[in-house]
Amino acid sequence: MSPSAESDRLRVILVAPRNPLNIGAAARAMSNFGFFHLRVVNPYELAFREARSAVGAVPLLARAEEFKTLAEAIEDCTLVVGTTAVGQRQLQHPVRRLDQASRPLRKHLTTSHVALLFGSEKRGLSNEDLSHCHWLLRIPTREGHRSMNLGQAVAVCLYELARDPLAVSKPEKHIPATSADLERLTALLLDALRSSGYLKSGPNGSQKRRSAAPTGEKIRRLVRRLHLSASDAELTLGILRQILWKSRQDNKLSQ
Amino acid sequence: MSPSAESDRLRVILVAPRNPLNIGAAARAMSNFGFFHLRVVNPYELAFREARSAVGAVPLLARAEEFKTLAEAIEDCTLVVGTTAVGQRQLQHPVRRLDQASRPLRKHLTTSHVALLFGSEKRGLSNEDLSHCHWLLRIPTREGHRSMNLGQAVAVCLYELARDPLAVSKPEKHIPATSADLERLTALLLDALRSSGYLKSGPNGSQKRRSAAPTGEKIRRLVRRLHLSASDAELTLGILRQILWKSRQDNKLSQ
Repeated sequence: MSPSAESDRLRVILVAPRNPLNIGAAARAMSNFGFFHLRVVNPYELAFREARSAVGAVPLLARAEEFKTLAEAIEDCTLVVGTTAVGQRQLQHPVRRLDQASRPLRKHLTTSHVALLFGSEKRGLSNEDLSHCHWLLRIPTREGHRSMNLGQAVAVCLYELARDPLAVSKPEKHIPATSADLERLTALLLDALRSSGYLKSGPNGSQKRRSAAPTGEKIRRLVRRLHLSASDAELTLGILRQILWKSRQDNKLSQ
Repeated sequence: MSPSAESDRLRVILVAPRNPLNIGAAARAMSNFGFFHLRVVNPYELAFREARSAVGAVPLLARAEEFKTLAEAIEDCTLVVGTTAVGQRQLQHPVRRLDQASRPLRKHLTTSHVALLFGSEKRGLSNEDLSHCHWLLRIPTREGHRSMNLGQAVAVCLYELARDPLAVSKPEKHIPATSADLERLTALLLDALRSSGYLKSGPNGSQKRRSAAPTGEKIRRLVRRLHLSASDAELTLGILRQILWKSRQDNKLSQ
């Protein structure tokens, strides 16, 4: 979902939140993912607008709307979805996993306002709150530790909503080295191996066939496995040329 | 990914985190999504283990491993991925969006350890930190407000990694080199570059800072881009050791 009419139709509603830091963190995540309508129902701390955790989202937090009751906070919404850490506490409600919920949510947002509810840190949404919901959403946390921090839960939900399921992964900019470069590299590397004695040479510089030929192929394969980019090949060629040049200088001096 | 061998292979690494509340929040999100190995490099506050935000994750936080350097923290990992809020700050690194990154991450986790790095709240990962990474991951936040809260960023990444248990991933045949091997390779290559004069040295072998530090990072990144297998790393280490040994012999003779 692009920063668009769709995301502008979502209302993030925090019901009876206790910790202003979590309200600020929720505001920050909203701003990160391009959702700008925060509503707060019966906050425990009235001075939540100063929360220092709203880094980069101070205006969003300042514009947050405050309500006495949940019913008032959802008046303009046609779909109300509650978040829950519990699986099937309310048998009256269908529960969707977040990754399965995002599609119907996005679809609904193309035409009308959606309320996404988060309960208080201690108790989540009450049964009374849940009775306002069309269905429930569960972040697929581990059964042994279901309950998430409020600010983190908001972030995860909005990430999933903002995520573009159709986003096609772009190819990397990797421009691969040509075979000619790789062959030059192979030759230089073999030179370096010979002059360092890693690869044995015969009396006139001729290779002892038995060991050298398989090693040559081994090195050629090694160089291909590196998947060098054109620029990395160039860098590596420069390095090898310098090493060889120095080795020859040293050889002359030592003879 | 089910709570399984795969998730057990992920190391979440917080580099120089400042706020213990964020470390605790990261621990909580890890526990929520079934990842249990937290590592902390150079935390600003040493008493982070008491962070009250680690609700339900106190044992996980108590078992967190502490390291002085990033290099030590990633030694047993074969893939190191850094998170960044910036798009293409490091053109040397491929940057994947989180939703495109989770697949290769999960695939890698089927065979070996993966490090997922998060930088400090103020500055993110340094260029030095980034040079240890194979590639970078970006949470697709809004361009106008990219930087997320640390605990929320961890939660979103782990949600995405834990999501989609049906995603089938085939094991790779490629057994990648460990970070320790890659670091040894980097060090040997730098030695070779210095002794060949590719990299300028000061009078006592001390590096001229201006050129050496960026080159060190450049070489470290180059080595990571090669995606060396464990056996290729061994082969390459052998080659470099021989080249260096020969170069030292020649130097002695020529003096």
